[in-house]
Amino acid sequence: MAVGVAAAQKFFSVDGIRLAAVAANIRYKERPDLVLIEIAAGSVVSGVFTQNAFCAAPVIVARNHLAQRSSQFFLINTGNANAGTGETGETDALRCCNAVADLAGNESWQVLPFSTGVIGEKLPVERIINSLPNAFQKLTDSNWGLAAQGILTTDTRPKLSSAQVSIDDQVVTITGLAKGAGMIKPNMATMLSYVFTDACIDQKSLDGFLREAVNLSFNRLTVDGDTSTNDCCMLTATGLSGVMISDIEDDACQKFKEALLGVFLELATNLIKDAEGATKFVTVEVNQGKDEQECLQVAYCIAESPLVKTALFASDPNWGRILAAVGRAGLEDLDIDSVKIYLGETQIVAAGARAPGYREELGQLEMNQEEIAIRIDLARGSHNERVWTSDLSHDYVRINAEYRT
Amino acid sequence: MAVGVAAAQKFFSVDGIRLAAVAANIRYKERPDLVLIEIAAGSVVSGVFTQNAFCAAPVIVARNHLAQRSSQFFLINTGNANAGTGETGETDALRCCNAVADLAGNESWQVLPFSTGVIGEKLPVERIINSLPNAFQKLTDSNWGLAAQGILTTDTRPKLSSAQVSIDDQVVTITGLAKGAGMIKPNMATMLSYVFTDACIDQKSLDGFLREAVNLSFNRLTVDGDTSTNDCCMLTATGLSGVMISDIEDDACQKFKEALLGVFLELATNLIKDAEGATKFVTVEVNQGKDEQECLQVAYCIAESPLVKTALFASDPNWGRILAAVGRAGLEDLDIDSVKIYLGETQIVAAGARAPGYREELGQLEMNQEEIAIRIDLARGSHNERVWTSDLSHDYVRINAEYRT
Repeated sequence: MAVGVAAAQKFFSVDGIRLAAVAANIRYKERPDLVLIEIAAGSVVSGVFTQNAFCAAPVIVARNHLAQRSSQFFLINTGNANAGTGETGETDALRCCNAVADLAGNESWQVLPFSTGVIGEKLPVERIINSLPNAFQKLTDSNWGLAAQGILTTDTRPKLSSAQVSIDDQVVTITGLAKGAGMIKPNMATMLSYVFTDACIDQKSLDGFLREAVNLSFNRLTVDGDTSTNDCCMLTATGLSGVMISDIEDDACQKFKEALLGVFLELATNLIKDAEGATKFVTVEVNQGKDEQECLQVAYCIAESPLVKTALFASDPNWGRILAAVGRAGLEDLDIDSVKIYLGETQIVAAGARAPGYREELGQLEMNQEEIAIRIDLARGSHNERVWTSDLSHDYVRINAEYRT
Repeated sequence: MAVGVAAAQKFFSVDGIRLAAVAANIRYKERPDLVLIEIAAGSVVSGVFTQNAFCAAPVIVARNHLAQRSSQFFLINTGNANAGTGETGETDALRCCNAVADLAGNESWQVLPFSTGVIGEKLPVERIINSLPNAFQKLTDSNWGLAAQGILTTDTRPKLSSAQVSIDDQVVTITGLAKGAGMIKPNMATMLSYVFTDACIDQKSLDGFLREAVNLSFNRLTVDGDTSTNDCCMLTATGLSGVMISDIEDDACQKFKEALLGVFLELATNLIKDAEGATKFVTVEVNQGKDEQECLQVAYCIAESPLVKTALFASDPNWGRILAAVGRAGLEDLDIDSVKIYLGETQIVAAGARAPGYREELGQLEMNQEEIAIRIDLARGSHNERVWTSDLSHDYVRINAEYRT
C-alpha cells in the first residue's frame, strides 16, 4: 500500500556526481542492492546520523571518515544493516571501504559506507567486494532513478526529488534520493537520504543548511516511533556550477535554502506516503502552544497513538481517541475548555466536548480522504508545530510480522 | 484472541457487598451493561483515577463524591464512556447518582458513577435510570461473576480474582473484578477495577495499600501506550470480618498486603492476557539500572515498540528490533558493550552484537511460547523493574478499526 500515485521520477543530474546500482545478491536475488556514488574531488560533504545508542557499524565508520573531510565515494547496500554486529561489523564496513579505495586509487577514509536492512546478521562482504568492479563500470551521471531503487527495503516506491533555481542568472541544481518505510522516527538525523547540489558551499554553511532542512523535514516524521540504528542524511555540494552560496541570509542564500527545503520536504513526505502499510497521509498540526517542546509532545502523542492510527485506517471519525491522546500528552495546567480540535476545516471539539454544529457526516467526509489534517489549537501561546504520520493498517502488521521470515 | 485459557471464576463473597448486573441496552442489546454495587454502611473506600487531562465526567463526579467519605453505591455502565461530553456529561452522571440515591434513601454524593465505552457520545440517562429498580431487586452477595461480565467492553473474558488469608486465626477475604483490553497504559491509576475486602482498615492505611498495590500491578501494564479518560481503581474495606489491619508493618499487615497484591497482580496480568488481539503475554524486565525511571524508560520503549510487538506476534526472534528499542530509549552514557539482552533464559545480545553461542533455533524456541520474557541487564546500577505487555496482531488492528462502526 501507499498513499496517492507515485510521482513521475523526473530529475536533473548534478554536475560532479556519478551513480551506479548493481545486484550483489546481498539478501534478495537479482535486484539492485548495492549503490555506488562517486563525488567529484573538491566537493564538500555534510552529514547527520542516528542518535540511537546502538548505532550501526557503518554509521560509526562513516562518521569517522566524514570527519577527515575528503569524501569521494558513498557505498550503500540494502538487505543487511550491519547493525548489532559489534567489532566484526566495523571491520566488515572498513573492508568494503578499502576495496572501493583500492579500485579508485583513493584512501579508505575517502569512502563512506551505509547499510540498511536486517539487524544482527553479518554483512556478506565478499559478495559486495566482488560486485564493485561491475559498479565502477556502470557509473554514469544519469543513474539517479536506478540508485533510488537500489537503496530500498520495504519501500514500494523509489523517492527522488529535484529542483533547479536561478541564482545570479546561473542555474543551481539540487537532487536527492531517500529510502525508508518503517522503523521511522528520526531523532536529529533521518533515514538514508542523499542530497546533492552543484552549488559551491563552504563546510560551515553546508552543515547549517543540512541541520536546518533536516529539522523541518525528516525530524518531523513518525511512522511507528521506532528510531533506526542506521539513519543517515548526507548533503553534498560539488561546487561545479560555480555559484557560491554562503549562510549569510542574502538573496542567493534565501533562494537556495528555499529550494533545498523543498527537496527535503518532498523526500520526507514521500517517505510517509510510502510508509509500511500506509493508506493515509496524515498531517498533525499543533498550534498556539507555549513552545516547540509542548507542541511536539502533543503532536507525537496523536501521531503515535495506535488507537488514533487504527481509526484513521478505518476512516472512522472517532474523535474521542484524538481528545484522549491530547489529554495524556502530559501538558501541565492544560485548560481543556480552551482546546479546539479540527479534522481538516471541520471543528470537532470545543469546551471539552463535541463542537456545536459538528455532525458525524462532516467528520466522515474528512476521514474519507487519503490526505488528512488533524489540527489542535492549544490556545496558550504562539508556537506552532507540524508532524507527519501514516495510519496503522493490517498491512503494517503483515509487513512487519513477515519481514525476515 | 486471548492468551491461555480463561481461569475458573472461583471467588469468595465479601461480607457487606451486594452486586447486580442488568441489561439497560446502553449500546448493545440484551447483555448485562449496568452494574450496581452496594457497600455496607461504615465501609471505607479509597480510589485512584486517570491522569488524563480530558478525564471523563463520571471521573470528576466520582472523585468529588469520594471526598465526602460515605460511599454506599458504585454504579458502573459499559458501552458509553460519558467522556468528551463537557458539562452535559457531568449533569448526566449526577442524574444517575440522584436516581440511585432516591431509590435507596441515600444522598447523591454517596453514589460513585463509573462509565466505560465509546468517547464523545451522550450518556443514555433514561435507559440507565429505568433499569435501576430491576438492578436493586437483583442485588445479592453472590453476583460477582455476573458483575465482572457486566463491565466488559472489548474484553473477551471477565476478570475476577479472590483470596482468603488467615490473620489472628480469623479469615479475611479479598475479591476484585476488573475490565480493560485496549487504550491501556494506566498512569497513576488504572482501568476500571474494584477490589473489596471485609478487613477493617482506616482511610489512611487503605489509601496507602491501594497506591502501593496499583503501582506494582496496573501501573506496570501497557497495551498500546494510550491512557484512557476513564481509568479508576477502587479499594473498599467493609470491616465486617472484624479483623483490624493498619499500615504499621506488623505481621497482619504484611500478610494482608501480600494477599492484596496477589489479587491486584492477577487482575492486572489478566488484563494483558485478554488485551485486544493478544496472542502473547510478554514480561519485560529491565535489571541493573540506575533508578526506577531509567528502567521503566527502557521497558516501555520495548513494550510499546510496534516493531517488537509485530515480531512477537510473528514469533520471530528478530532481536535486532529489541536492541534498537533499547538504543533509542534515551539513556545517557549507556555503555552498549555492557548491555545484555535475554529471551527467556537464552542470552541473545552481548557486547553490542549477537551473543556467542546464540543460535536462531534457541530464540525460536522461546518465541514460540505464549508467555515470553524479555530481559535487559543494563549493568550500571542495582534497580530492577518489570512491565507487562501484549503483541500487536492483525486482530488488534481489526478490533480497533471496527470498534464503533
